[in-house]
Amino acid sequence: MPDTSLRHRIHEIIFEADTPAGKFFDVALLALICLSILVVMLESVSEFNENYGTLFFYIEWFLTIVFTIEYGLRLWVTINPVRYALSFYGIVDVLAILPSYLALFLANAQYFLIIRILRLMRVFRIFKLGQYLTEGDQLMKAIAASRNKISVFLFVVTILVIIIGSFMYLLEGGSNAGFSSIPRSVYWAIVTITTVGYGDITPQTRVGQFVSAVVMILGYAIIAVPTGIVTTEIINTKKDVSTQVCRYCSREGHTSDAVYCKYCGGRLNP
Amino acid sequence: MPDTSLRHRIHEIIFEADTPAGKFFDVALLALICLSILVVMLESVSEFNENYGTLFFYIEWFLTIVFTIEYGLRLWVTINPVRYALSFYGIVDVLAILPSYLALFLANAQYFLIIRILRLMRVFRIFKLGQYLTEGDQLMKAIAASRNKISVFLFVVTILVIIIGSFMYLLEGGSNAGFSSIPRSVYWAIVTITTVGYGDITPQTRVGQFVSAVVMILGYAIIAVPTGIVTTEIINTKKDVSTQVCRYCSREGHTSDAVYCKYCGGRLNP
Amino acid sequence: MPDTSLRHRIHEIIFEADTPAGKFFDVALLALICLSILVVMLESVSEFNENYGTLFFYIEWFLTIVFTIEYGLRLWVTINPVRYALSFYGIVDVLAILPSYLALFLANAQYFLIIRILRLMRVFRIFKLGQYLTEGDQLMKAIAASRNKISVFLFVVTILVIIIGSFMYLLEGGSNAGFSSIPRSVYWAIVTITTVGYGDITPQTRVGQFVSAVVMILGYAIIAVPTGIVTTEIINTKKDVSTQVCRYCSREGHTSDAVYCKYCGGRLNP
Amino acid sequence: MPDTSLRHRIHEIIFEADTPAGKFFDVALLALICLSILVVMLESVSEFNENYGTLFFYIEWFLTIVFTIEYGLRLWVTINPVRYALSFYGIVDVLAILPSYLALFLANAQYFLIIRILRLMRVFRIFKLGQYLTEGDQLMKAIAASRNKISVFLFVVTILVIIIGSFMYLLEGGSNAGFSSIPRSVYWAIVTITTVGYGDITPQTRVGQFVSAVVMILGYAIIAVPTGIVTTEIINTKKDVSTQVCRYCSREGHTSDAVYCKYCGGRLNP
Repeated sequence: MPDTSLRHRIHEIIFEADTPAGKFFDVALLALICLSILVVMLESVSEFNENYGTLFFYIEWFLTIVFTIEYGLRLWVTINPVRYALSFYGIVDVLAILPSYLALFLANAQYFLIIRILRLMRVFRIFKLGQYLTEGDQLMKAIAASRNKISVFLFVVTILVIIIGSFMYLLEGGSNAGFSSIPRSVYWAIVTITTVGYGDITPQTRVGQFVSAVVMILGYAIIAVPTGIVTTEIINTKKDVSTQVCRYCSREGHTSDAVYCKYCGGRLNP
Repeated sequence: MPDTSLRHRIHEIIFEADTPAGKFFDVALLALICLSILVVMLESVSEFNENYGTLFFYIEWFLTIVFTIEYGLRLWVTINPVRYALSFYGIVDVLAILPSYLALFLANAQYFLIIRILRLMRVFRIFKLGQYLTEGDQLMKAIAASRNKISVFLFVVTILVIIIGSFMYLLEGGSNAGFSSIPRSVYWAIVTITTVGYGDITPQTRVGQFVSAVVMILGYAIIAVPTGIVTTEIINTKKDVSTQVCRYCSREGHTSDAVYCKYCGGRLNP
Repeated sequence: MPDTSLRHRIHEIIFEADTPAGKFFDVALLALICLSILVVMLESVSEFNENYGTLFFYIEWFLTIVFTIEYGLRLWVTINPVRYALSFYGIVDVLAILPSYLALFLANAQYFLIIRILRLMRVFRIFKLGQYLTEGDQLMKAIAASRNKISVFLFVVTILVIIIGSFMYLLEGGSNAGFSSIPRSVYWAIVTITTVGYGDITPQTRVGQFVSAVVMILGYAIIAVPTGIVTTEIINTKKDVSTQVCRYCSREGHTSDAVYCKYCGGRLNP
Repeated sequence: MPDTSLRHRIHEIIFEADTPAGKFFDVALLALICLSILVVMLESVSEFNENYGTLFFYIEWFLTIVFTIEYGLRLWVTINPVRYALSFYGIVDVLAILPSYLALFLANAQYFLIIRILRLMRVFRIFKLGQYLTEGDQLMKAIAASRNKISVFLFVVTILVIIIGSFMYLLEGGSNAGFSSIPRSVYWAIVTITTVGYGDITPQTRVGQFVSAVVMILGYAIIAVPTGIVTTEIINTKKDVSTQVCRYCSREGHTSDAVYCKYCGGRLNP
């Protein structure tokens, strides 16, 4: 069965990166995805769109066809196509080609643009190349471990900005157009407490400026909290202590490169 | 006494969250509080208030009545109503319904709005649901432990911004309307050192810009201090202390690699 | 000699805070210093100065006389007045009263204001009350320990902002008034890399905005460095490990509350 | 051969800093480089250039000649001039003098300025003085160790800002000139997520402001990640590793509480 053999070889090229051909395929795909994102971004610049609109159009259709063929091959070579189609990358692959086809029927530019953004999800395919995956994994673990603490923190910050925003609305609302409603004032409070500080809304009254100053100093002190949480978790994921127990003295806490027990000198189990 | 039994059952529903009914009550109350906050916030947007003002009015009174009944029930079912009324949540519960009633007598919109803000305190009742309470507790401990250091830090920062503000007032005060007084200049110094940077007040002279640049670099370096303090405390609350209790002196706090009790010298259980 | 006894008693009140009278003196002095700073700050607000200028004038002279008497007493009661006069607090005490007297001869308001700022140094006397002094000491130690690393870091940041500033001057200088010279561009680079972001100078060209974006991402990553340095030092100053060595097994690493060696159970030297 | 002796002595002065003459040479060179940078910076200020343009011109040529002589001497005294010329400092030394000579042939001021910026690279020669080099080394190691994690982090941030930018372009693009294209919106997203917040582009619609608020809170939480990464690495470079060397296998890296070598089981020296 030469066909099976071909399927097997294509599977190796498309899904794996161990062979030179597989590596080349992944790098080429990555480059095409980057090109695709670049085209979508430049297309939104009216100046470029006027001059190179046709070029962008052709590149876009070329990439759409390439990605469609790629998606078809992926479906063909996998043993369980349905499972692939419903996996995260399977769905992203469809979403990456669908907008171009939908644009044929939906002439309305506004909607067309909304759909186009989904193409950016293609970028996630880059992760497949992932020589940095272990590092990313460690980071994800640290973030996942600090999820609850970060949630509590964000909840408290949310309450805080609503109270501060309402208070500033009462102080500045009458005289300052920037604080014309509580939601706007809460937006200001978030802009301030995160130290972004656009300056599109600023306190004008003396009391308002004093309260703002207190909010800033507060933000300065509590910005330390999420940093402290994440740092602690990252340190914990790097605690290089194995689960080995010494047969002779039954003590643990050996580093992963230890051969002998550091307390009694007995040989540790490999 | 069926009444006592009813009181007991209501107490279980209102104050506890172990039974399905109690859990449902807490979640429903949480939803009503969120709705209440949303209404207060949207009411402040003039556009929404013009169109939906009557709806907001009815929702507000509906919620006020519900919360009043809830407060009455809480007083009725607790064994010691006075103690509840004077507890933190008892006071917050009253403050959450009082403004609506006060609004009947105080027609002045300005004052009415000031009182309304207290309603936001209702949010704190959410904490009662608290599946994240342990996490919050750990955070509170870490922050409490670093309270003194943070105080010293904030005190030094306060002195610093007053000196910097006064200095900038002397440098820019004459030519720059933004630095028209020392309090305004101190406000600028706080906006700058916390890296908020609104840009409503900016140095215009060359010397002023140079001093500002030094202040920013300074702020960049000292932003590290509160982060360092809080991080250290969070790490300490997570320290590697085993649950071993000495058989001889019953004291804890041994590190996981200890063989003998560090307090009485007795051999610890393996 | 009743005089000596009086000197002794005044010394106790002024220089020490162990007696009730000494404590009261320190707190009262602290309050007067705060009042003094407040007056200087409010005096700079033209509106307040017009209405309460005379009041401010009298408060200022009252405080100047009180502080002068206090300084005289300090000189009188100390055994070595010259040494006190040349100490840090001795110099600050003189600088806190001098400006008011100098204002009598120097009518020029401009200079008068420049001198007035030195009064703010009075705040440092608050540290004498210092129940937080240990905490401050620990912080100072951590900062002192990380001084060299912070210096290297600030030096690299300085080079970086000069290069970035010059580069942006070449990119934006021609078309953008904000980047009219290298010093101004360096000021922009500092405002950006420290994430202050006033917005008084912003890139206008596409290339300029791209370079700015890279600078911001860079700043985002390197803001981590001083935080990491200071955090490490604060953690190190809290490493609660005594220098005790066990007489029996000669091992160290015991915590300061250990009575017995945690490795061999031998009693540690007190 | 007196010449060789002279070459040897000059080598000592120019390349080493152990002798008083060598130290003086390095400090003088440092001062001249700083002067050179200052002149380039001040020259760009039109006001100064009009008044002191000729002075700047002479200083610049004086320094160029001095640096040329210095470069010539360096080539002459080194045993392997080609290797020096191709080393990092050799290339920087040429780039520091080349622009002045190129300016003779290239009259176009615009290009002249572009070349001038390379002079700033002279600053890197300061590192040769390096009493802080160990500290810098430790920092470099910590940053190098966290390179992979920082890369993953920056990659995720890049994807995030492109998605956020595109989304905001769809939300605000129609009504807000600031979000006129995806690249501009991505620039805004970077300005926001890094908490720089210029305020040159700000959301105007309610939905846009809500999304911005979420982005800021997000940025607030993830700013913790690079800090956590670098802090962990700096802590690791300072880890508690004793200087003990095993007598049997000559390997180091034992923790201070180790009794037996963890590699070969031999008893460590007390």
